[in-house]
Amino acid sequence: MPLSEFSLIENYFSKLTPERRDVSLGIGDDCALLCCPAGKEIAVSIDTLVEGIHFFPDVSPKALGYKALAVNLSDLAAMGAEPAWFTLALTLPEQNPAWLEAFTEGLALAAKPAKIQLVGGDTTRGPLTISIQVHGLVDKGRALRRDGASAGDRIYVSGTLGDAGASLKKRLENWSPEPLDEADWQYLQQRLEYPIPRYRLAQQILEYASSAIDISDGLLADLGHILERSQQGAKISPAKLPLSSALKKLSSEFAIPLALGSGDDYELCFTVPEKNIEVLEQHGLDIHCIGEITEGDGLILLDETGKEMNIDARKGYDHFGT
Amino acid sequence: MPLSEFSLIENYFSKLTPERRDVSLGIGDDCALLCCPAGKEIAVSIDTLVEGIHFFPDVSPKALGYKALAVNLSDLAAMGAEPAWFTLALTLPEQNPAWLEAFTEGLALAAKPAKIQLVGGDTTRGPLTISIQVHGLVDKGRALRRDGASAGDRIYVSGTLGDAGASLKKRLENWSPEPLDEADWQYLQQRLEYPIPRYRLAQQILEYASSAIDISDGLLADLGHILERSQQGAKISPAKLPLSSALKKLSSEFAIPLALGSGDDYELCFTVPEKNIEVLEQHGLDIHCIGEITEGDGLILLDETGKEMNIDARKGYDHFGT
Repeated sequence: MPLSEFSLIENYFSKLTPERRDVSLGIGDDCALLCCPAGKEIAVSIDTLVEGIHFFPDVSPKALGYKALAVNLSDLAAMGAEPAWFTLALTLPEQNPAWLEAFTEGLALAAKPAKIQLVGGDTTRGPLTISIQVHGLVDKGRALRRDGASAGDRIYVSGTLGDAGASLKKRLENWSPEPLDEADWQYLQQRLEYPIPRYRLAQQILEYASSAIDISDGLLADLGHILERSQQGAKISPAKLPLSSALKKLSSEFAIPLALGSGDDYELCFTVPEKNIEVLEQHGLDIHCIGEITEGDGLILLDETGKEMNIDARKGYDHFGT
Repeated sequence: MPLSEFSLIENYFSKLTPERRDVSLGIGDDCALLCCPAGKEIAVSIDTLVEGIHFFPDVSPKALGYKALAVNLSDLAAMGAEPAWFTLALTLPEQNPAWLEAFTEGLALAAKPAKIQLVGGDTTRGPLTISIQVHGLVDKGRALRRDGASAGDRIYVSGTLGDAGASLKKRLENWSPEPLDEADWQYLQQRLEYPIPRYRLAQQILEYASSAIDISDGLLADLGHILERSQQGAKISPAKLPLSSALKKLSSEFAIPLALGSGDDYELCFTVPEKNIEVLEQHGLDIHCIGEITEGDGLILLDETGKEMNIDARKGYDHFGT
């Protein structure tokens, strides 16, 4: 790492994240040195954001810094891992102190509540690209994986779905349905730009859930990953999907496809064996049962009477998924 | 990770690196799960290569794949850590199977001898950018750091210096001095494109060395990092710098500045307390003593009679550094 890089990271980044006792050596050498406590496994994930692909060129650098870390923290949440350390590879077209300060502010906004420390990085010149790798800790053999769902398990999601997708649809299609007011749009944009990674919730469901994933690509696509890995099917009831008060103002013709198919909410989708449901439900968590794992490999949508939807009724939803 | 990404990584990458028993879960979930053995620390480093900045657009994808991992393995070597796991964030302008196959071949060429496993990744569309994060293992408290050098320690380098720099100079300046023939240029290009990370050598010097760094930016710059972190000075003898038979054909007016100032050789520079020298030297390693750590903060160059070089004599060297 040449001096200029090191100074850049040192100046803007190194003091903005919490200092952890399990970091023997942080930024400034060839490597960071980290201690993994006995009995823990390390969960590792890397995600890249590229300008024009994952974010609009005019996004605020603060929101970008926040989201770049938040989406990685969401991957840790999906495994039930507690955030510990991260590294940042930042490619920048130019040195812009104001941009870097705002970006760092956003990064710190996501890092502080997660108690995650920046332990290394690399800055290079080039088209704006942000790669973040996160490390989390989870008790050995206890991580939530995609392949643990069994027939009969209930399917849950956290929070509300479709909010980020609605904001994105407004931006991309100039979509502006009548019932939504300025406050609704502000809320939806907040959901898109500042998603809340569910790592705390993940700790609370860890002992009850059989599988989990975070919803980054849309419920149908992400639940599909659980089904594929677990070699199971599922039936879900679109009418049971949790919607924000903003999305409840829309007709279900708009709201349901958004909740089923749009990504970027970073809520959790997870499965719970029947024997764990009663005690899980007693915790009063912001989670909602939307269906059940079945034998086979199909994903069936049920109408409000509990009957399988026919092809025509599904058609409007499916193109949002996968 | 959407399905398309996953398939890309699964198809090209997942089977090409060694499988390790300390990987509980590899590619294909939200995170990989890794086990750190008791008594070990984890050394972590991330490096990004951007087209047009770190490599020429016409570089062979095989060489690129090799070097992208090799330069990261070199960071592990600098800490004395044994390679264990890596992740790859790859941004590609297009899906090009032939390119990907060659890139992967190069990656595997670096990964196999290092016994390092690819455990996760992310592929995105955009300008060609490669970020690799490596993880290594080292006994707790035993890593080689930049801040461990003391006055009186001898300064060593491995291998030969300036080779990659000579190849780069030819390419950038159309430089082609008389004494070098085609075989020399092939050798020098090999040194630039396929640097050998010194992680095995690092294991052999680990118990004798007091500090280390890998030479990525040039000896003067990288030794400078050791001096800065250790708050020491140094005197070195340019005449003692190890040169390849190709560089020995050049006049010292060309060879010495290359060996002092050019980067990309990825050899190690390390310091050894006097009491360890005799036993270290008995190992018959490819290492060369080039000077000594001193009190103070200057880096002094000595001429062949052991006298400090004057400003004019140094001037020709210095602009290659930092």
